[in-house]
Amino acid sequence: MKLSDLGEFGLIEKIRRATPQGTGVRLGIGDDAAWVECRKPTLLFTTDGLLEKIHFNLQWTSLKNLGWKSLAVNLSDIAAMGGEPAYFLLSLGIPVDFKVEDIDKFCLGLAEAASEYGVSLVGGNTTASERLMIHISVMGYAPHGAIKRSGGKIGDDLYATGTLGDSALGLKILKRKRKRMREIERFLASRHERPSPRVDIGKRLAKEGLATAMIDVSDGLIQDLTHLCRSSHVGAEIWSDAIPLSKAYRSFVGKRDPIYALNGGEDYELVFSVPQKRARRLDRLKRLFKTPVSRIGKFVEAKKGIRIINSKGETVTVPLSGYDHFKL
Amino acid sequence: MKLSDLGEFGLIEKIRRATPQGTGVRLGIGDDAAWVECRKPTLLFTTDGLLEKIHFNLQWTSLKNLGWKSLAVNLSDIAAMGGEPAYFLLSLGIPVDFKVEDIDKFCLGLAEAASEYGVSLVGGNTTASERLMIHISVMGYAPHGAIKRSGGKIGDDLYATGTLGDSALGLKILKRKRKRMREIERFLASRHERPSPRVDIGKRLAKEGLATAMIDVSDGLIQDLTHLCRSSHVGAEIWSDAIPLSKAYRSFVGKRDPIYALNGGEDYELVFSVPQKRARRLDRLKRLFKTPVSRIGKFVEAKKGIRIINSKGETVTVPLSGYDHFKL
Repeated sequence: MKLSDLGEFGLIEKIRRATPQGTGVRLGIGDDAAWVECRKPTLLFTTDGLLEKIHFNLQWTSLKNLGWKSLAVNLSDIAAMGGEPAYFLLSLGIPVDFKVEDIDKFCLGLAEAASEYGVSLVGGNTTASERLMIHISVMGYAPHGAIKRSGGKIGDDLYATGTLGDSALGLKILKRKRKRMREIERFLASRHERPSPRVDIGKRLAKEGLATAMIDVSDGLIQDLTHLCRSSHVGAEIWSDAIPLSKAYRSFVGKRDPIYALNGGEDYELVFSVPQKRARRLDRLKRLFKTPVSRIGKFVEAKKGIRIINSKGETVTVPLSGYDHFKL
Repeated sequence: MKLSDLGEFGLIEKIRRATPQGTGVRLGIGDDAAWVECRKPTLLFTTDGLLEKIHFNLQWTSLKNLGWKSLAVNLSDIAAMGGEPAYFLLSLGIPVDFKVEDIDKFCLGLAEAASEYGVSLVGGNTTASERLMIHISVMGYAPHGAIKRSGGKIGDDLYATGTLGDSALGLKILKRKRKRMREIERFLASRHERPSPRVDIGKRLAKEGLATAMIDVSDGLIQDLTHLCRSSHVGAEIWSDAIPLSKAYRSFVGKRDPIYALNGGEDYELVFSVPQKRARRLDRLKRLFKTPVSRIGKFVEAKKGIRIINSKGETVTVPLSGYDHFKL
């Protein structure tokens, strides 16, 4: 069945059924606006969109994973503030000849992410469009205050969650469109298609008052670190050997070359700064996390810029290739 | 100058400067998420998008008016709940060859609407896209509870704010692309391009506990009334002669034919039901509003459906043409 047979209101009903309503929702999908309870004195509010042919390509991305990822990238923004996501809106632009089964798959992935992170879909809107476009807005709480990009100080240590660069390699692998993948390839592809926003870690860092500045890695470590440095008026020194790389990454690249970890986007890991005097508290806390947290460098004076330093103490020159949507 | 020269971060800075930050904003544009104060126990949350060639055409729509309208259509959804808008996010997809002056014009219209209705732009995201696309999400308060679509009862009177059908005529006029317009044409075109969300009226109705059900007219009176009737499990009788038409409408159409008022969308007026026993309280309240409020019919039993009745008591058959984005 095609979307044109289902119609706009059939589509909305389908989405409503696929995504169960959570607590705090006084009025969900189906009115002019959602009406929800607000349980804390401050809120976080973010939006991100994924557009076909710009952010994803249906030739190598499954609809189910796209549903997951659309929500996950937004949850990652809440995680990067140390917040707790609560509600979200979905704005869908879909071609009229879209298959209803594909919409079902998309809803399934979306519902999996919503359930995993405890957020409720409360409204949105749908429209016909030439290409698939997904916009999500998330509202969350900042129960322990928000961790901004701007609080970093010279001398603070820099940390990263998880491993970096897997997503960029995963995209390379997916683009090959091979039917069979080795296990490491499947792992890397899944890191691209189903990122895990680090909500628990972000929230815990806020609760313990450990991080002075934080960002999630969506455009690539160097580019996102640049944002962090600019906001905090500092520079950064990154130790290339300390950058956390997965076994799959090392096996796929064949050596310990961190280039994909430095420039590859869409890892949705957190990068944050912690004053050295709090390092031991962070070490104790790290044991509670399922995801590893690695020290990758430190903040230095702004005039030193961002430098990548190898184990011999040499500064490594890295071609900057962070993403600007409008640069030709 | 083109957008490709300005770059993504130049664009974001431009938008930030054009839209001053209001109260309650702890952290606006420039971090992973906005951080705002929440001053009431419940919130409204809505999103709506305008896509080039689907919702607007730059051949006959000015960028400044588009900026206004993008926000206004969202504020209208908050108005339709009886709410008070507070903060919004802007998600922009822009072609890379877009002129920077046109972005300035868009920001100007957007800032005018934000200032008029006291809402703060707190974040968003930007991306390159083939055609211009604007998604806005608004967060507001429901200080007096929300007026749902579902609270209507048989016997409740139906009211509409302002005048209906002007926007559909305005679009007809704009499509002609004439350089010179008569005064009535300018009025109708402006009703299409710069709708006035009825936030004050909606909020007052909620405060006084007068309306049992409410919706804003975005898809056309009949279609939106159908939503209201379905949610409230009632039918409706509309008196065709009672439908409020502007002088410009009557002059342009040349007679009192309400067809554009019945089927034309994008008026962004409110339609709401009030129990007859509260009619006198509403009459007293109406005097306080700058915008007229007209009684246009009443809710009847669901099995009677929606009927349009003329002054002779005859049922008028109206070709239904409400909009479904996915019907071919």
